[in-house]
Amino acid sequence: MVHPRVLRALSTPLLGHLDPAFLDVMNDIQTLLRVVFQTTNRFTIAVSGTGSAGMEASILNIVEPGDAVIVGINGVFGTRWATVVERCGGKAIRVEAPWGQIIDPAAIEQALNRSGPVKAVAIVQAETSTGAWQPLESIAYLCRKHDVLFLVDAVTSLGGVPVEIDRWGIDVCYSGTQKCLSCPPGLSPFTLSDRALASIKARRIPCQSWYFDMALIADYWAEGARAYHHTAPISMLYALREALRLVDEEGLLARFARHQPNSEALLAGLAPLGLVPLPPVGHRLPMLTCVTVPPHIPEAEIRMNLLSAYGIEIGGGLGPLKGKIWRIGLMGESSTETHVLTLLNALEELWIRRGYLSTPGVTLEAATQVYSRVVF
Amino acid sequence: MVHPRVLRALSTPLLGHLDPAFLDVMNDIQTLLRVVFQTTNRFTIAVSGTGSAGMEASILNIVEPGDAVIVGINGVFGTRWATVVERCGGKAIRVEAPWGQIIDPAAIEQALNRSGPVKAVAIVQAETSTGAWQPLESIAYLCRKHDVLFLVDAVTSLGGVPVEIDRWGIDVCYSGTQKCLSCPPGLSPFTLSDRALASIKARRIPCQSWYFDMALIADYWAEGARAYHHTAPISMLYALREALRLVDEEGLLARFARHQPNSEALLAGLAPLGLVPLPPVGHRLPMLTCVTVPPHIPEAEIRMNLLSAYGIEIGGGLGPLKGKIWRIGLMGESSTETHVLTLLNALEELWIRRGYLSTPGVTLEAATQVYSRVVF
Repeated sequence: MVHPRVLRALSTPLLGHLDPAFLDVMNDIQTLLRVVFQTTNRFTIAVSGTGSAGMEASILNIVEPGDAVIVGINGVFGTRWATVVERCGGKAIRVEAPWGQIIDPAAIEQALNRSGPVKAVAIVQAETSTGAWQPLESIAYLCRKHDVLFLVDAVTSLGGVPVEIDRWGIDVCYSGTQKCLSCPPGLSPFTLSDRALASIKARRIPCQSWYFDMALIADYWAEGARAYHHTAPISMLYALREALRLVDEEGLLARFARHQPNSEALLAGLAPLGLVPLPPVGHRLPMLTCVTVPPHIPEAEIRMNLLSAYGIEIGGGLGPLKGKIWRIGLMGESSTETHVLTLLNALEELWIRRGYLSTPGVTLEAATQVYSRVVF
Repeated sequence: MVHPRVLRALSTPLLGHLDPAFLDVMNDIQTLLRVVFQTTNRFTIAVSGTGSAGMEASILNIVEPGDAVIVGINGVFGTRWATVVERCGGKAIRVEAPWGQIIDPAAIEQALNRSGPVKAVAIVQAETSTGAWQPLESIAYLCRKHDVLFLVDAVTSLGGVPVEIDRWGIDVCYSGTQKCLSCPPGLSPFTLSDRALASIKARRIPCQSWYFDMALIADYWAEGARAYHHTAPISMLYALREALRLVDEEGLLARFARHQPNSEALLAGLAPLGLVPLPPVGHRLPMLTCVTVPPHIPEAEIRMNLLSAYGIEIGGGLGPLKGKIWRIGLMGESSTETHVLTLLNALEELWIRRGYLSTPGVTLEAATQVYSRVVF
């Protein structure tokens, strides 16, 4: 869900992409993005493409043909990242964990010790295909120790849980607008540390991509320069500014705090339905609850019921988890008690109608108990 | 300018990118894009990026390392295209013409005869940096004769002048949404002939880009398949559908016919101000009028005056034409008699105030004479 103020911002009449009034919009976006990324990085912008464009830009700019990147793989997005590394001529060193689990920092350390020269380590903070919440601090520490760049995918996490670029020491980080920032999809917030910028400036050959070449794009976003690169997606940038203002008005910490009880209440309510969380305790994302669906439940049919009869969309499993899990997003504007209770009510009705459950009220009771413990 | 219906469409609440209701939006877009591209190409979509993304996608998908592409260069965008070819490992064979002139088909034929094996010829139909309108039919003929693919940049032309994909035999064509389609920037309409698709399927190595890999993207747009690739930019696609509906309601031919007298009236009105068209007669784009500004006119200052005092934005020259020309867009919704007369009036006021002109009324008189000849 997107706040009405963001929808209204989308329909603002257009300005030229070099109009002084529009350059102010860009400045606002940079300032606000630095707040959510918790960084002072000068290079903090929105890439003109979705989160996957940010993923591609992260590799295209850092990796030169032959460079090795250690990629943590525990779901769809780590897998995709490794593919992107290979497509641009890099060598992907895969450090795998079962889908739903996190990547063990010890496995990353082992890879760093055993591999030859490595350019970067790439880790997904919030694996959107499994709901696993990856800790980043110790991997950041290892990257510093081995003097390699640290790349983080924060597509689903940014604005929902801490993404502390400066404090942890992340060099390249990208996100998407349509997750916890509650803006429509189409842009990828992107930040580069000075270390990453220096590495880009020291490239032997230019970035394979002209569209995603951050060395060129920097000249458009840099105050003073403002050199035309490509036409900025004006309306989407209006929307992003408004969405970021809403995040800023709520306050980052308050926003993180809001996501937590809603995901706990949801999990509590799903338990009596036999829906068990996929990731282990302590590594469950608060904005994306992934649960295993028992084999006797026709999961695709129920998801279709939810959408057509209740107007609720939840995600199915991807890749090897297809047909086995549900992915329930409670992100940004959508992370509300009303959404939790409405979904639980709908599922309970479907469960009772199909004879999977006989006692009504158990899901709401479990969820309400969680909320009664929260002090607002 | 963007029609209020398009602005309103932008603020439509969001759907999921695999929601059946959203898939209908995609189907509508494909149907309507086939109308403006005048094609039956099954692969006709909107790329999730601006026109420059379309340019990059055109090369990334067609060219493999070592492939040669003949690129017509008579402005910024041909130059950029050659860079994109080289960045993805291809060999750019440059066929140049002075900026403002068109590419001579005989020069393309010579290049085809003299070069070794060539994969494609890439030509900009509407060179946005000069206002030159490139004829395509004879180059299309040469491409067929030599069995090479024909790539066309129709960023500024689509919806304003004919882009006849099927009749001329164009294999790859991309555009932008913010020119004659009068939609905000952010998407790139893109179409591939069966010949181009076959060439993509026969690639020896996969596309360097994952984000722009049309073989993968095809599975999301293809009815029946709808495989997740990247999250579609929902709001922008709402806007594009509405903008295309407006084009369809007006009718392509009526839209082309509307652009012509407005550009003629503008040129007639600019003449008494000493502003002479850059491209030769017969090769002037009706949606983008480029005129040479005499050296004694402080062009940047006057453009700033126009923006701040009259709310009118016109473009300056790019690259070697910086400071030497003006680029005046009358595209789609913005191609109106009111816009022409308002701009001429503003310029005349500035000219008189600065003592470049003494007789008031000459620009409007010249423009009005053109309109009086048009039979509506």
